[in-house]
Amino acid sequence: MKFRRIVICSAISVVVSGAAWAQTNQIPQDPAHNPLDPQSPFATLYLPQNAPSAADQVGPAEWTHAYGNPQHNAGFAVKATAPAWIRDGVRWNFPEARAWPLNDNHPYGEKVDGIKEALPVQTQFYGNALGVSMVKGIVYAESDDMFAYAVNAQTGKLIWRSSPVANTLMGNPLVVGNHVYLSAGSVSFNFANVMAYAKHPQQAGRGKDISYNGIFCLDRTNGNLLWSFKTQGDAMPTPAYAEHSLFISTGDGNIYRIASTNGKQIWKTHVGGIANMSSPVVWAGKVYVSMSVIPGLYALNVQTGKVLWKGEIPGAVNTGMGDVSPAVDDGIVVMDSVANPKKVNGKPTMETLVRAFNADTGKVLWTDNMGRGPKIPAFKGGVPMIHDGMVYVGSPVTSTYEAINLQSGKVAWTWHVPNPGPAGAGRGAPTYYDHMLYISTGPDVYAINPDNGAMIHEYHVGGRFGIVNPTIVGGTLYLGNSWDWINAVPLKDVNPQFNVSKP
Amino acid sequence: MKFRRIVICSAISVVVSGAAWAQTNQIPQDPAHNPLDPQSPFATLYLPQNAPSAADQVGPAEWTHAYGNPQHNAGFAVKATAPAWIRDGVRWNFPEARAWPLNDNHPYGEKVDGIKEALPVQTQFYGNALGVSMVKGIVYAESDDMFAYAVNAQTGKLIWRSSPVANTLMGNPLVVGNHVYLSAGSVSFNFANVMAYAKHPQQAGRGKDISYNGIFCLDRTNGNLLWSFKTQGDAMPTPAYAEHSLFISTGDGNIYRIASTNGKQIWKTHVGGIANMSSPVVWAGKVYVSMSVIPGLYALNVQTGKVLWKGEIPGAVNTGMGDVSPAVDDGIVVMDSVANPKKVNGKPTMETLVRAFNADTGKVLWTDNMGRGPKIPAFKGGVPMIHDGMVYVGSPVTSTYEAINLQSGKVAWTWHVPNPGPAGAGRGAPTYYDHMLYISTGPDVYAINPDNGAMIHEYHVGGRFGIVNPTIVGGTLYLGNSWDWINAVPLKDVNPQFNVSKP
Repeated sequence: MKFRRIVICSAISVVVSGAAWAQTNQIPQDPAHNPLDPQSPFATLYLPQNAPSAADQVGPAEWTHAYGNPQHNAGFAVKATAPAWIRDGVRWNFPEARAWPLNDNHPYGEKVDGIKEALPVQTQFYGNALGVSMVKGIVYAESDDMFAYAVNAQTGKLIWRSSPVANTLMGNPLVVGNHVYLSAGSVSFNFANVMAYAKHPQQAGRGKDISYNGIFCLDRTNGNLLWSFKTQGDAMPTPAYAEHSLFISTGDGNIYRIASTNGKQIWKTHVGGIANMSSPVVWAGKVYVSMSVIPGLYALNVQTGKVLWKGEIPGAVNTGMGDVSPAVDDGIVVMDSVANPKKVNGKPTMETLVRAFNADTGKVLWTDNMGRGPKIPAFKGGVPMIHDGMVYVGSPVTSTYEAINLQSGKVAWTWHVPNPGPAGAGRGAPTYYDHMLYISTGPDVYAINPDNGAMIHEYHVGGRFGIVNPTIVGGTLYLGNSWDWINAVPLKDVNPQFNVSKP
Repeated sequence: MKFRRIVICSAISVVVSGAAWAQTNQIPQDPAHNPLDPQSPFATLYLPQNAPSAADQVGPAEWTHAYGNPQHNAGFAVKATAPAWIRDGVRWNFPEARAWPLNDNHPYGEKVDGIKEALPVQTQFYGNALGVSMVKGIVYAESDDMFAYAVNAQTGKLIWRSSPVANTLMGNPLVVGNHVYLSAGSVSFNFANVMAYAKHPQQAGRGKDISYNGIFCLDRTNGNLLWSFKTQGDAMPTPAYAEHSLFISTGDGNIYRIASTNGKQIWKTHVGGIANMSSPVVWAGKVYVSMSVIPGLYALNVQTGKVLWKGEIPGAVNTGMGDVSPAVDDGIVVMDSVANPKKVNGKPTMETLVRAFNADTGKVLWTDNMGRGPKIPAFKGGVPMIHDGMVYVGSPVTSTYEAINLQSGKVAWTWHVPNPGPAGAGRGAPTYYDHMLYISTGPDVYAINPDNGAMIHEYHVGGRFGIVNPTIVGGTLYLGNSWDWINAVPLKDVNPQFNVSKP
């Protein structure tokens, strides 16, 4: 390894709250926990010169749910009058704080943990677990490197980065008005909670007395912390925004409604179990939340927090239902879970069940079995997406995607991911855009014909995509990467048939 | 809160390995996981202009054990010809990456977790769990903020900071030759290991598939990563250095000997149980390691890794023996643990037992019961220190320190910490220096008469000291703080009787 010495003189504009105290002996007077020293690695870095011009503030006006909306379809067309760059598509790779070389096929901990475990560990503790949000010309991302980022969607240049809490950030930033909402949660149990779990599994609390959990509200312009709502259990799932409120599920079995303006609690309902990565969804006056350990899909009244119905998936394994976020459209809630573990030829296997519920009553409409496959590590389900009366959903157990009729449950087609890798592929929701389905799984992005499941093209990005759905705006596909990068890929590279002037 | 805008133009010299790639679209070619962008928050920052001159490289020549040496006595006199600053003492407070205001009496998570839990959580996940090392005019510290620091002992100015891995660093850096050794380990269990623990407690592995554990060897001059030895279980305890080797204990019950030059494994012995914060100690050809869950103090042959004897503390609670590091001197190993939990008036209580073993045979020489007190959170023992035939040890269960005759086990005196606080005081080892005992616990440092336990003086620093022993060199006391600071305090402020010209 070669070393070379470089001298940097950077004139950067940094906005800090209170007094600067750098390498002095002063004790800061400001109680903000973020150090105020602008040279401190966790100080918020704000580079206003990289913000988009008014004309370039294109794309969605807000981001209210994980994966984009209650349907989980993150495809957004732009007007024909939009700037050329957003219609034609852009390419850049933004390295986040611990960016691991994209062209390195070996995850960080492979030598010790083996590649099968090392892949999900790198998604959970290193880079981006979910995809990115795109609002008004800016891409927002949360990373396990403990930073949130705002990056110019056209140029890939950093506008701000902020680390308001020493915890992994595994969500998809919500953006409403001048607020960006982050969710912080540790995936872990400390020893006392392990002992508690061994005695009374229903009383265990993930994330309790481990690091610092909750919702952190940042100023969208500069990344400064405005307020936080702290929780005992982990707040790993992205909350849902509706009616000037955030709906939050936590690792100690609580569902909260808080005011999105100031974080004040409006109601709290204890449903029990553990929220893993299942983000709540709000649709037509109800909030839908799915929990693990005590597996269950709950429908709560948005106004009161009262549980209206509880749905189940038969044979769901303990963690299954708490990982996947339900998708909702046309009065139907679609949920899936790994279920019915069984040893086959001495090896553990499980199957993936997809189930549709009447959103009002919880009545089961249909159940689809995606098939049996080997037990895989970490997040074992696929995030469902609904578009125009069809459900598109993957299963990393079988490394397949299916198209299912939303009303009837009839399977239209099944597509097998060509190179699923040792940890299985199929966690992220597909994105439907301009008569094409886009899927990011493993190190690749695929274009799939939504009518028949035929693969149109495979595009190699590198690194690995965790529970990532492609965020498509105009002619660009934006992605979060477990290797700690944000990627922008021109749509025409993933789909050679894409006509930039059309959508 | 007020905001003001400042512009910084800093000419700093940064040494980076490989090519700089900053905000470009390039993919780095260097496989080091540390991003190479010198503006990246986790890039190693090296400021050679802050290194001490040759004349100022005073203090110990190396640091081979947690708490300074096998006796855990971190008091080091300097010559009368040493520079005036080291004899007179210096004062500075160095803010680490997430420095929390020292004058804020409320820990970060107090409102959510309550002060009793929030205090140890801030030690485990925010600031410095242990004290600092001091070698040749430089103070070295590890922090839960994921950075290791080298700070000029005279000026308090940063020489380098380095974050070679995304994990909490809870140790006391070892420094030998041109190497600094860090230990990285997560205190947590993931869900799969919680399930494993519930079924087979003896097979559980703390830290497994959670973050990135192991030993990280840095270049002492500039903080660059030279090599790492990665482990599946956590490597939370500081290793011990002897005979060109490091001795490591991990959260999955393994003891390793590796070469200190290149990290190659020499032997590995599975003793079972979980290493918490108990650092191994090497003394006269044997390595002593204490484990929890399957409680036991083990003596292993340094050359072969063979277990020579196993010592026990009667009624030790599951985590008790794995927290405390044994002290060794004069052929005697001193260990303590919380034991015999019992409800008193409906509230959980426990007692602290101190036990001495013959270092060769493991024969029990004596056992001292420090008394019963309320169950407290986190690290429940006190780190013993041996000086001149006396054992000095605290118990946070009773918030007391005792002086015990090493040979006979006879208690000479008991001192009650005046303001123990809600989490109990007495975790850190005392330091004996120039006929005085110095203790850092809670937000304070105390000077205690070693002959009779009389308190000479109390000095308020602020923040909180975790398992911190004062590191004393010449006329200065150096400390690591849970609030994420390194503190230098002139000895004469803690002990008004201290005569700078004497030791």
